[in-house]
Amino acid sequence: MRVNGELKDLATTVTTTDDVVPVTIDSPDGLNILRHSTAHVLAQAVQSVNPEAKLGIGPPVTDGFYYDFDVAESFTPDDLKALQKAMDRIVRQGQRFVRRVVTDDEARAELANEPYKLELIGLKGGSASADALGQDNENVEVGAGELTIYDNVDPRTGEVVWKDLCRGPHLPNTRLIGNGFALTRVAAAYWRGSEKNPQLQRIYGTAWPTKDELRAYQERMAEAARRDHRKLGAELDLFSFPDEIGSGLAVFHPKGGIIRYEIEDYLRSQLLKNGYELVNTPHITKAHLYEISKHLEWYADGMFPPMHVDEEVDADGNVVRQGQDYYLKPMNCPMHNLIFRARGRSYRELPLRLAEFGTVYRYEKSGTLSGLTRVRGLTQDDAHAYVAPEQVKAEIATQLELVLETLRGYGLSDFYLELSTKDPDKYVGDDAVWEEATETLRQVALESGLELVDDPGGAAFYGPKISVQARDAIGRTWQLSTVQLDFFEPELFELEYTAADGTRKRPVMIHRALLGSIERFFAILLEHYAGAFPVWLAPVQVVGIPVADEYAPYLDEVARQLRAHAVRVEVDRSDDRMQKKIRNATTQKVPFQLIAGEQDRANGSVSFRFRDGSQLNGVPVADAVERILQSIRDHEQVVTAWT
Amino acid sequence: MRVNGELKDLATTVTTTDDVVPVTIDSPDGLNILRHSTAHVLAQAVQSVNPEAKLGIGPPVTDGFYYDFDVAESFTPDDLKALQKAMDRIVRQGQRFVRRVVTDDEARAELANEPYKLELIGLKGGSASADALGQDNENVEVGAGELTIYDNVDPRTGEVVWKDLCRGPHLPNTRLIGNGFALTRVAAAYWRGSEKNPQLQRIYGTAWPTKDELRAYQERMAEAARRDHRKLGAELDLFSFPDEIGSGLAVFHPKGGIIRYEIEDYLRSQLLKNGYELVNTPHITKAHLYEISKHLEWYADGMFPPMHVDEEVDADGNVVRQGQDYYLKPMNCPMHNLIFRARGRSYRELPLRLAEFGTVYRYEKSGTLSGLTRVRGLTQDDAHAYVAPEQVKAEIATQLELVLETLRGYGLSDFYLELSTKDPDKYVGDDAVWEEATETLRQVALESGLELVDDPGGAAFYGPKISVQARDAIGRTWQLSTVQLDFFEPELFELEYTAADGTRKRPVMIHRALLGSIERFFAILLEHYAGAFPVWLAPVQVVGIPVADEYAPYLDEVARQLRAHAVRVEVDRSDDRMQKKIRNATTQKVPFQLIAGEQDRANGSVSFRFRDGSQLNGVPVADAVERILQSIRDHEQVVTAWT
Repeated sequence: MRVNGELKDLATTVTTTDDVVPVTIDSPDGLNILRHSTAHVLAQAVQSVNPEAKLGIGPPVTDGFYYDFDVAESFTPDDLKALQKAMDRIVRQGQRFVRRVVTDDEARAELANEPYKLELIGLKGGSASADALGQDNENVEVGAGELTIYDNVDPRTGEVVWKDLCRGPHLPNTRLIGNGFALTRVAAAYWRGSEKNPQLQRIYGTAWPTKDELRAYQERMAEAARRDHRKLGAELDLFSFPDEIGSGLAVFHPKGGIIRYEIEDYLRSQLLKNGYELVNTPHITKAHLYEISKHLEWYADGMFPPMHVDEEVDADGNVVRQGQDYYLKPMNCPMHNLIFRARGRSYRELPLRLAEFGTVYRYEKSGTLSGLTRVRGLTQDDAHAYVAPEQVKAEIATQLELVLETLRGYGLSDFYLELSTKDPDKYVGDDAVWEEATETLRQVALESGLELVDDPGGAAFYGPKISVQARDAIGRTWQLSTVQLDFFEPELFELEYTAADGTRKRPVMIHRALLGSIERFFAILLEHYAGAFPVWLAPVQVVGIPVADEYAPYLDEVARQLRAHAVRVEVDRSDDRMQKKIRNATTQKVPFQLIAGEQDRANGSVSFRFRDGSQLNGVPVADAVERILQSIRDHEQVVTAWT
Repeated sequence: MRVNGELKDLATTVTTTDDVVPVTIDSPDGLNILRHSTAHVLAQAVQSVNPEAKLGIGPPVTDGFYYDFDVAESFTPDDLKALQKAMDRIVRQGQRFVRRVVTDDEARAELANEPYKLELIGLKGGSASADALGQDNENVEVGAGELTIYDNVDPRTGEVVWKDLCRGPHLPNTRLIGNGFALTRVAAAYWRGSEKNPQLQRIYGTAWPTKDELRAYQERMAEAARRDHRKLGAELDLFSFPDEIGSGLAVFHPKGGIIRYEIEDYLRSQLLKNGYELVNTPHITKAHLYEISKHLEWYADGMFPPMHVDEEVDADGNVVRQGQDYYLKPMNCPMHNLIFRARGRSYRELPLRLAEFGTVYRYEKSGTLSGLTRVRGLTQDDAHAYVAPEQVKAEIATQLELVLETLRGYGLSDFYLELSTKDPDKYVGDDAVWEEATETLRQVALESGLELVDDPGGAAFYGPKISVQARDAIGRTWQLSTVQLDFFEPELFELEYTAADGTRKRPVMIHRALLGSIERFFAILLEHYAGAFPVWLAPVQVVGIPVADEYAPYLDEVARQLRAHAVRVEVDRSDDRMQKKIRNATTQKVPFQLIAGEQDRANGSVSFRFRDGSQLNGVPVADAVERILQSIRDHEQVVTAWT
């Protein structure tokens, strides 16, 4: 339950003046409590099997939980099975979770055998220590207030059978965990996220209110694994990460390259139709630019180290000309600002919308890299609109419309919006300006008719943001487009325009990424379609399959007609038999298989075979060509036999 | 004259068995001798005015010559005028150039006051010392053979009035220099091209056999200056080189960005039509890749320094994980090789043509950078074809055809070919393979019907090359496309394919750049068209100019129709009067001005005004739209009034 806004155990004593709100187990708070309680049971199970195991931390995470252990040897799959059984036993015993306030010294005495817990006791007291636990860990051990230990009490004997340093809250007893949990995998993790600390073994698990929900989750995971873009990327020969080049730097093979091009080309055509101007900027720059933008002050950790060049030394070794540090760019906006101020600007030119497919490089730790979704080199579809303050609302509305229309063109149609608002502890600029801008974003978001979710305090320090969250084919949510107001960079770069009355004014800047990064969007589409791209995106759009070799020349002629319309078509002239060719094309997820034998050749027709296995025979070639072109033009999603 | 193949003074004694070929003054050799003799006269003039001036070197260069001097103060424009007069006097005197062989010691004694010449005496003896003089200097002082001094002898007195260490040859006397020379400019230059040496003052001049040829050259220079892409780039707001980013790193503004996009897009459509596959590779890589390709062995000077990352250090400061050096890529080919070998390849896949607009970074010295033609960041339209040895000829022929067709599409049509053949001192691979490949290239070149010029010894060490040289609108020649065979990289990367007979074979690699770099090609087109781009490339293709404000809405409607066809159109709604609007559009070199007043509005027509000032009134809007679209579609070069 929430008592006066704070999560509390159900055993907490309340008074008639307290504001008490129930927390159901299927709410986000309820799920966190369930998962955190399950993590406790896991730790208890581990220590029941191996009393020497030392405890790290065990927070809830998305869909589950983990717990870190210092153990001599890592856990095997068999260990996990045994632990799951041990956990089942603890759950069935219905041990009570009992909260107990302790002093630091008491805690130290009770947990003398738990060196990591001892370290946490010293960290007690607020956000600084919570941060120290690492970016994705909640500080579930010690809160900002009282220090507490939770005892697991055997309901039959009243005996404390296990305990853990924890700020809680928990379920009333372990039986309420039920049978909707499972241990999923083991990973290594440094204590408190730092390479300088010992490496612990982390066990991940998932937990749900019911067994059915667990099964549904497991099925979603299995489906996601089948769609994993890293797996499909290799199977369909789309991209790779060669060792010779390095981690997080993707190489797009021909079939991935053409998809990437189609993704970009469609977006570019949308931008050109909608008044965006294409610019082009380098991938490196002198440090000075990122000193102006303050990226070197705030973002240096996310940047590659500098390259020092242009230093001149005379014969005596004296520096006669100072060198310069050059950096790979982590963001495009400062360069666009230079274009804005390359000459005087008039109000007549606003909104000025500069767009670029700008490849940026960010120094992500190699351990955090993952496929195309977390990389070191990424191409942003980056646009910056410079607008007069009075144009903000209309511009945001126009941008949001363009964003949604364009995302629908990629086959995504299930959206909601998120409004990230001011973090009261971390922002620049005037409160009134923030308030007005936030209100403007909210109005535009509401007028879109989409569901709007608040993200209080989630804004960057320089301005509020609307983001578009899209659900994919298997219900997962991805943050895609962002429309971000910026009151800060125009100040840093002293951007100005001449207003209608002749005065010099400062424009508002709007950062707009529609796809986010091409690489990540590529991965999302690949998983959304499970590799079976709509025709316009498919690397091979049509395969001609002759019933026998003698019909290949006929299909070559059909292919020639399609190629004249820039259709990507191949005729399979391999030595395989027809059924094998059909299987190959099916494995490669080619949307149209055109089969031709004696009858089709005699009639000037072809027979379609679609991805779903359905077939349409004897389609006149001209009709076939037109139907294929139409499917490409319309970005048709799923093509099956038509009548 | 050439005696037994070597250039000699006319005063050289020859025998009946010598092979003597005359060298006329308008031949390349003759022009070099004229220009080098003029450089001597310049040096003599400088020392006549300032006896303290110490001599550097004075070679002929393209269209002229220079001479370097160590002087206390740089030369002013007035100094150059005085020097030109002093030179005229020396020329009129008809001083004889007399060659004299000396020993090193004699030369040292005679040139005791010329410290730079003394240094050169020590360098006598071959190509190593010539290289030491810097990439664009010929070693005109000391050759590989005898050491010689040239005396300038007064024909009336027989007295030696000046002398210079020089390998010659020279004109017989100064009078033959005539009046076709001029001093052009002064620049600073380090002695022997090294920043570690003293800085000298370099005077540049031009010299021609006749005054008329000098004038023609000066006019070409003036025209080239009017077309200078750096000047036009600023005037037309196309690009800039912001100080904040650094030298040689271009930023394309909206109007330059759209031209750049059109240049790329047309090429890309040509590539896709012709069986090229688009790939995409990162701008950085681990050192390992360029170790395999040997770029780090041979090309490190042209690369930016490395960025060292991913090193892990434990709490005691011990390196627990070795870091990696990452480099900006100077070339794309090694990455394309990785794509080739990402999986097994079959002969059925060949030719495999991988194409990318790949931005590379090269560490050119900041002093050598110039506009868009010599930059540090450049985007190559880089393609690599992997072919079976027996496919080389057909592939080269196909590529050359595509190259010429595409260049014509950009409005260049005056070409010749250059065949760069083996440097006998510097090549890898088998002689027979070189011979066959060179013969193949020659055949293809001859079959193209274009003029073919030999470039003996000009090939890179890894294979022969055909290059396309294009003449622009004012007759200048630019090396554009290159088709370069490579027998070497396929070895280094151990590239293989499975041949029809099941054996593993090594493909031949063909490097093909059609535009060279987008930046340089952009500059060439900008100068070729003097900024007056054909409609398809023009950043603003159409400007609507209302006779009075009330006709602006009518032109807005015309603009809407054009925009629906992706035409870049603006309606000038500024406060300027109509004549001023016409002047502005003319200055901005907009190809189509559409003017409309009462009559046009009443008739549903517009009036065209063209760049040449011609006009065509009362064109129905539908016809006007169609005519504009046709001009874009056809890449029409010059548009004037039609009938």
